[in-house]
Amino acid sequence: MSPSPDFATPAFADVLAAAACIAPHAHATPVLRVRSLDAEAGCSLLFKAEHLQRAGAFKFRGACNAVWSLAPEQAARGVVTHSSGNHGAALALAAATRGIACHVVVPAGAVAPKLAAIAAYGAVLHRCEPGIDAREAACEAVRRRTGANLVHPYADARVIAGQATAALELLGAGGDLDAMVVPVGGGGLGAGTAIALAGVSPRTRLYLAEPAGAADTAASLARGERVADLVPDTVCDGLRATIGAPNLAILRAAGAEALTVDDDATLAAMRLFWQRSKQLVEPSSAVALAAVLQHRPRFAGQRVGIVLSGGNVDLEALCGAGT
Amino acid sequence: MSPSPDFATPAFADVLAAAACIAPHAHATPVLRVRSLDAEAGCSLLFKAEHLQRAGAFKFRGACNAVWSLAPEQAARGVVTHSSGNHGAALALAAATRGIACHVVVPAGAVAPKLAAIAAYGAVLHRCEPGIDAREAACEAVRRRTGANLVHPYADARVIAGQATAALELLGAGGDLDAMVVPVGGGGLGAGTAIALAGVSPRTRLYLAEPAGAADTAASLARGERVADLVPDTVCDGLRATIGAPNLAILRAAGAEALTVDDDATLAAMRLFWQRSKQLVEPSSAVALAAVLQHRPRFAGQRVGIVLSGGNVDLEALCGAGT
Repeated sequence: MSPSPDFATPAFADVLAAAACIAPHAHATPVLRVRSLDAEAGCSLLFKAEHLQRAGAFKFRGACNAVWSLAPEQAARGVVTHSSGNHGAALALAAATRGIACHVVVPAGAVAPKLAAIAAYGAVLHRCEPGIDAREAACEAVRRRTGANLVHPYADARVIAGQATAALELLGAGGDLDAMVVPVGGGGLGAGTAIALAGVSPRTRLYLAEPAGAADTAASLARGERVADLVPDTVCDGLRATIGAPNLAILRAAGAEALTVDDDATLAAMRLFWQRSKQLVEPSSAVALAAVLQHRPRFAGQRVGIVLSGGNVDLEALCGAGT
Repeated sequence: MSPSPDFATPAFADVLAAAACIAPHAHATPVLRVRSLDAEAGCSLLFKAEHLQRAGAFKFRGACNAVWSLAPEQAARGVVTHSSGNHGAALALAAATRGIACHVVVPAGAVAPKLAAIAAYGAVLHRCEPGIDAREAACEAVRRRTGANLVHPYADARVIAGQATAALELLGAGGDLDAMVVPVGGGGLGAGTAIALAGVSPRTRLYLAEPAGAADTAASLARGERVADLVPDTVCDGLRATIGAPNLAILRAAGAEALTVDDDATLAAMRLFWQRSKQLVEPSSAVALAAVLQHRPRFAGQRVGIVLSGGNVDLEALCGAGT
C-alpha cells in the first residue's frame, strides 16, 4: 500500500482544519500527571491519554479526519485499508460515525481481540496471507471491486494531519514543553507531531521512541534514506510497520531524533506506568516512557510531553489465560 | 484487633463531618461511564473511581478521617494498625499528611509490592507470624510500647464514616440511583455506604458483592449472626477479612443483601473492565461488576452505582514476571 501519488505534506493549517473536522466525533482526551513518575524520571511528564480515545488509540483521529474529508460522492463508496491493529479498528469506527462502508484486510495470525473490535465496529473483514505483498494485493482487489477509498495507516496526508491534533491538544493543555516523545512505527503520529510543533512550539525538540527490534526509523534517519528491509521483532505490536517515505521526509526536515528501546525496558516501563497511574496502556505506548527513563540526563528538569498512543492490550498474550 | 469498646454507630452527620475533614487531603475521584459495559449489563453503570484515590484505594478516606479526628495530644503519639494491604498503605499516607508516626504490623507472606508501598509512605513495619492472633498480639504490643492510637481497618466508627464519603460523592455526582453495589470484606465500605444511602437516598438498594471463597457476610446475613469461622480462599486479597460485628449490625439494619461471586467470574469481569475502560482495577473491585453481570435481570434497566474500591493489582501474581 504505497502512499497516494498525490501526497502533499500537510501544512499547519491542515492540522487546524483536522482539529475542527474531528471535534464532533473524537474525544479531547485528558493530560495526566503522575507525581511519583516525575520523581522517578527527574523531569515533569505530561501524558496525553490517547488510550482513552475512541477505539482505544490516537489512530481514531487520523482515520476520522480521512473519513470526514471525503466528498459525499467519494464517501458513498466507503473506505478500505489493511491493518490488523488499531488503525483498522479506528477506521471502522470512523466510517461508522459517517454511516459508510469500511473494508479491512487482515492477515492470517492477527490478534483475535483486535479483529473482534474491528468487526464489532461494523467493518467487513477480508482475510489474506501474511506479508506486505499479499496485504497490498488484497487491499487493491477490494478497492477495485468496491470503489472504496484507500486510507493508508500513516503515509496519508489526511491521516497525518489528524494524528497531529493529539500534539496540538497536548501543547494547548500542557503549556510550554521542552521535549515531546512519541512512539514511532509508520510515522503518522511522528510526522503529525512534527507539523504541530512547527506551528505552535518550534523550540520543542521531537524524539521518536522506537523498539530496538523494529528500529527502521533510527536506521533511516542515521543513513539519510529509508531503510525498509528490516524484519520487525518486538512486543510492540503497534510499531512493527516500516517508516513511510513521506513520514520520513517530514521527520528528517524537523530534525527529529530516534531513541531505541529494548522490549524488556518497554515492558518494565509499562508495568511501572500501570502501577502508578492505574491506566492500562499498551506496550507501544510505554516505549515512550521507557525512552525517557533510559535517557534521564537528556531530559533532566525539563517539561516533557508523551503521547500514550493506545490502550488495546492483548492481555492473553501478556498475562496468559489465567488473568 | 477487636473494635474499640466505645464503638458508636456513625450517624449521617458524622459522614458529612468526615467529608469536610478529608476534603483537603483526599481526591474527589471521578465517576466513570463505559457505554459498552452498559450495553453488556443491560443497565446504566456509574463507577466511582476509587482506584484513582490516593494510595490507590478508597481506604484512604477512612484512614484520613481517623487520623485527622485525633486530638493533637493523641495524634502526637501516632497511629498503629495491622494490615498487609490497602488499609496499611492508606493509614501510612494519612499519617504522613499529618506528620505523625504510623506503625503497621504485617504478617509473614504479605504481598511485597504492598509492603513496599506502606514503607514508601514512611510507616514503620513490624513483622509478625501469620494468623489473626499473632497479628493482634503484635499490634497490641506496639500500641502499649508507643502509645499509638489503634485504627482498625473497618470496625471503627471514624473509618466507617470516612469510607461513606465515597458513596456520598457518587450520589452527588451520579444522581438518583436504583442500586449501589460495593465489595465487602470487613464491611467498612459497606457499612459506610449504608449510612450514606440512609441520609441521601433511602430508596436505593444496597448490595454487597462478596467472593464465594470468603462469603462470611452472606452467611452472617443469612444466619442472623456473625459467622467468623470461615477460612477465606479467594484471589480478592482485599476481601479476605471477616465481617466486623458493628459492620454487620449496620448492614443488617439497612437490609443490605449479599451477592456471592466465584473468582473465575470476578477475574473475567476484571479483564472485561480493563479492556473496555483502560482502567486498572484490582480483583476486589471487579467483584462488584461481576455481581451485576451475574444478576442481570435484577438490575435490568436500572441506574446502578458501583464503587471501584482500588487499583493495587499484584501484577506479578496475576500475570507472572513476564509482564
